Amino acid sequence: MRIIDPYGSELPKDYHRVIKDFGLQPFNVKLLPKPNKLMRRGVVFASRGLEPVIKAIKQRKKFYVLSGIMPTSQKIHFGNRSVVENIKYFQDRGAKTYILVADLEATAARGIDLKEAKKNALEFHIPAYIALGLNPRKTTFYFQSENRQVTNLAYEFSKKITLNEFRAVYGSADPGRIMSALTVIADVLFPQLDERMPGVIPVGIDQDPHIRLARDVVRRTRQKYGFFPPAGFYHKYTPALNGSLKMSKSMPESLLELPEDAREACRKIRKALSGGRKTLAEHRKLGAIVENDMAFEMLKQHLLEDDKKLGKIYREYKKGKMLTKEVKDLACEQITKFMNKLEKDMEKARKLVPKLKFVR
Amino acid sequence: MRIIDPYGSELPKDYHRVIKDFGLQPFNVKLLPKPNKLMRRGVVFASRGLEPVIKAIKQRKKFYVLSGIMPTSQKIHFGNRSVVENIKYFQDRGAKTYILVADLEATAARGIDLKEAKKNALEFHIPAYIALGLNPRKTTFYFQSENRQVTNLAYEFSKKITLNEFRAVYGSADPGRIMSALTVIADVLFPQLDERMPGVIPVGIDQDPHIRLARDVVRRTRQKYGFFPPAGFYHKYTPALNGSLKMSKSMPESLLELPEDAREACRKIRKALSGGRKTLAEHRKLGAIVENDMAFEMLKQHLLEDDKKLGKIYREYKKGKMLTKEVKDLACEQITKFMNKLEKDMEKARKLVPKLKFVR
Repeated sequence: MRIIDPYGSELPKDYHRVIKDFGLQPFNVKLLPKPNKLMRRGVVFASRGLEPVIKAIKQRKKFYVLSGIMPTSQKIHFGNRSVVENIKYFQDRGAKTYILVADLEATAARGIDLKEAKKNALEFHIPAYIALGLNPRKTTFYFQSENRQVTNLAYEFSKKITLNEFRAVYGSADPGRIMSALTVIADVLFPQLDERMPGVIPVGIDQDPHIRLARDVVRRTRQKYGFFPPAGFYHKYTPALNGSLKMSKSMPESLLELPEDAREACRKIRKALSGGRKTLAEHRKLGAIVENDMAFEMLKQHLLEDDKKLGKIYREYKKGKMLTKEVKDLACEQITKFMNKLEKDMEKARKLVPKLKFVR
Repeated sequence: MRIIDPYGSELPKDYHRVIKDFGLQPFNVKLLPKPNKLMRRGVVFASRGLEPVIKAIKQRKKFYVLSGIMPTSQKIHFGNRSVVENIKYFQDRGAKTYILVADLEATAARGIDLKEAKKNALEFHIPAYIALGLNPRKTTFYFQSENRQVTNLAYEFSKKITLNEFRAVYGSADPGRIMSALTVIADVLFPQLDERMPGVIPVGIDQDPHIRLARDVVRRTRQKYGFFPPAGFYHKYTPALNGSLKMSKSMPESLLELPEDAREACRKIRKALSGGRKTLAEHRKLGAIVENDMAFEMLKQHLLEDDKKLGKIYREYKKGKMLTKEVKDLACEQITKFMNKLEKDMEKARKLVPKLKFVR
């Protein structure tokens, strides 16, 4: 059996294979009203158990969306932006929204001090999530280390999953990871303690083990709690600028962090893997291999909202009318705007943080 | 390596062997001022790392004593009484006293509902501990499920012990037990969060794995916390009335619970293994094998405070001057007094419970 490890660096190479191996549903963009660009462009590629959420949206019934912040360092990446974009989508469609700071996970799985984790979240991650589009007035925030109900649930759930199941799902089972995973499962179900309702968790595919175990726990505690099984909602990774599957700190030249100095970001984009041909003549004749072009990919996943503009770029680049430099110029221009706006919006968002109320 | 399992039923058969195998110090009654009857009579048989506590008592410096209540059912046994007697001893010598309700352990290791655990503790265990001699005005009580600092420490410690270490120490490592054990370790060190000081944990030998791991965690967190390693203080089990090592629910006729109907207790004592000989003539001639006499053992461990009286019974029984029936009559008389007093004292103690303040 293949294993996806939310704590490790091994990655599924083929999203179709992942869908098959892990029993996901391929994402069907027609099922959701007014899909966002990640949904329209296939960046959201799969879901698990989404039906009750779709139904809740259509029937205007209560449901929730939840995500966690991992406050290990004061940096996030474009994957976090995809999460926030999807959270915002569900938030705008009426979802009760929960953002938790996974400080206990940071301490148990990564050895981060709780005070440092708290500082990181307040100074950086929460302002960043707000700057990326989260509506703070419609969002419930909490720290795992302050949410008594969540940790008490984690203890209760520890009796519901065996060591071998942990090992099968995560590939390993050290005490810190076990406690982290149980707490994540408790987070995922916490919004239902007050009121049972469907919920959706937008995540990268590496977080799917948590979703699967949470759904197992729902089945095993049916009699006591009767929770709705939470839905998983999966987006593709933002590829590294060298074309490999995922940006990683081990390849700093292929990594765009948030925030990142705009000039640095441009410099990296100019060096990125492109779909252009070796010579101008060849390019004009054969057209670009757009799928290989990381500047285009950035435009598609993150930098260009307008489908028409993106479609036009795609067609002209593919035909060889548009040159690599032009695509990179555009990506550079967009990322400069993006980073500058992010900086300003984070500055504003930081002023909101002291007014936020955290659930305890 | 031999394993002691605090969750299981396997028991060390030979206390001397246990001392050797687990690197305990044999208990030396001369080291502590005004030893209680458990100490004087060898029921306390070993300790681990007690020196800083002895020093604190002699130099009138701060130290603490801590124990936990396992609120699984509304019954306790004479082993709990030994714990309370030792707690009281240290409490009377100035120890800051902590009694925690291990409700998270009850839910994680035994599947008990937190509400039920709380009810059991408030209605039964806390009044029982007070009735058995604990001074509630000098005691800090808390529930694990309400003590944020304890659970946060447990998460932090999860990174300090490997799965293999858990397995080596406990013989098994399922998620519920791992979370329980980490929480117990956090309990044991919690009193030092405000102020570093030596501490002593009076326990049955089956709880020693927790003490060992807590001491390991102290070493591994030295730089951050600089805790004193907690001392273990071990008493023998109260043997079952049929002479086997430990009272157990699987042998109800050999088990005395607290509280238990006095007449039932007497009836069981009359059927208990005795040290008397087969015939009166033989008894008068050879004397009793006092070590085999469970009624005498109850007098020694629990029912008779006066050393002189106990010594006289021992000598006369050993010589055959005293008969089994007389020893059992005395044990029966004493246990009747004991159970009646316990009932009354618990009734009084129940009225104190609403006034107790619990640390959160």
